[in-house]
Amino acid sequence: MKKAVILLSGGLDSTTVCAVAKSQNRSILALTIDYQQRHRFELEAAKQIAKRFEVAEHIIFPINLRLFGGSSLTDDSIEVDQNVSFDQIGHSIPSSYVPARNMIFLSLAVAFAETRQTEEIWLGVNNVDYSGYPDCRPAFLHSFEKTAKLATKAGIEETSTFQIKTPLLSLSKGDIIKLGLSLGVDYSMTRTCYSLDENGFSCGKCESCQLRLAGFREAGVDDPVPYINDIETGMVNKRRIE
Amino acid sequence: MKKAVILLSGGLDSTTVCAVAKSQNRSILALTIDYQQRHRFELEAAKQIAKRFEVAEHIIFPINLRLFGGSSLTDDSIEVDQNVSFDQIGHSIPSSYVPARNMIFLSLAVAFAETRQTEEIWLGVNNVDYSGYPDCRPAFLHSFEKTAKLATKAGIEETSTFQIKTPLLSLSKGDIIKLGLSLGVDYSMTRTCYSLDENGFSCGKCESCQLRLAGFREAGVDDPVPYINDIETGMVNKRRIE
Repeated sequence: MKKAVILLSGGLDSTTVCAVAKSQNRSILALTIDYQQRHRFELEAAKQIAKRFEVAEHIIFPINLRLFGGSSLTDDSIEVDQNVSFDQIGHSIPSSYVPARNMIFLSLAVAFAETRQTEEIWLGVNNVDYSGYPDCRPAFLHSFEKTAKLATKAGIEETSTFQIKTPLLSLSKGDIIKLGLSLGVDYSMTRTCYSLDENGFSCGKCESCQLRLAGFREAGVDDPVPYINDIETGMVNKRRIE
Repeated sequence: MKKAVILLSGGLDSTTVCAVAKSQNRSILALTIDYQQRHRFELEAAKQIAKRFEVAEHIIFPINLRLFGGSSLTDDSIEVDQNVSFDQIGHSIPSSYVPARNMIFLSLAVAFAETRQTEEIWLGVNNVDYSGYPDCRPAFLHSFEKTAKLATKAGIEETSTFQIKTPLLSLSKGDIIKLGLSLGVDYSMTRTCYSLDENGFSCGKCESCQLRLAGFREAGVDDPVPYINDIETGMVNKRRIE
């Protein structure tokens, strides 16, 4: 069975990637980065998801990006953008951009992969519901793949086959959800919100919630996770973008 | 004053890089990675060196590469190569190779640089006394630089000027030492050994000690750091490759 390192955040996209890898008969080595993010509940979600997919190994790797700061996700003095208009998303770099995050995470994935004798890294980025992050662009991913080939042992003999696999890259959020549902993904386990509370309730207002909710609307199904506003309105699981 | 992030290990090369950057009027942002390496005394050396160079900021960034293992420096079940013949160095990848280490360290340096509004990263690699690490090769460094340009905010507007500066790349170890001495570097503060003991004594036998000692011999000066074998022989500061 071919091994694949998967960067598993506990969100919708990386969980779908696990399902795709499983359907292609991969043995999953899950890597979850605990970067002291604001939304801590996400880590609990990742643990449950890894269990559900019966991964061969799951490393929760702590790395304190708060030492650098510079993002609303890693610096409490910077606010998470709220009430982002859906049309604004993707037009500028949001405050949630964490400098060099994907580069750091992918480098850690390369280390994990090389020590486990595999050269496959799977990543849940997508370029359609583009959120304005520079390190989600295909040009970056291709360049990183080339760099990874040079960075490793196999790179010296030029036998490296390092691959960054991005099965969701050209799918819309709605299509990702449809794909996941067809593979049996239980999206109630996943969390996406940047302002998750300690009970795992999503805010429904940040850019990440907006993209998720639009995706479920597009897929024509209800989002099964609880939203904080539902408590006020009593409309559990029915939250939609107005 | 231009700011420069410098990866400062506490070793001979990165200390020399600090001196070169200082001589070129840079304000130093030092980044030392505590990757749970075997040779812990190195971190103490880095702290003292940062103080001596009056750096603007020094971050000691902990990252537990023992979670991946796969190297004699991060896995206690793998021995550090001892009594390496000097002629063997550079002909194969040594057990001290830490998978993807430079890629991870450079990615962290990119994050540090971007959050501090600078695009200069200085690194003490050199390609002459090549130790067989894939991630010290110019091809890797060039590819990484290109990837970093794409990974960051400035990369989106294609205004990024990200630079990996490697002033020692084409110098021999002896020339590095001569350069450092001409800039007033006190090499007694630096540590290089992979098997440093808790008092900061070097083994004199590992590949790293061998390269260092050959460098001092080439430069025609004594290495001022203490070696463990000196205790036996009484020849403090006189240890040489036989």
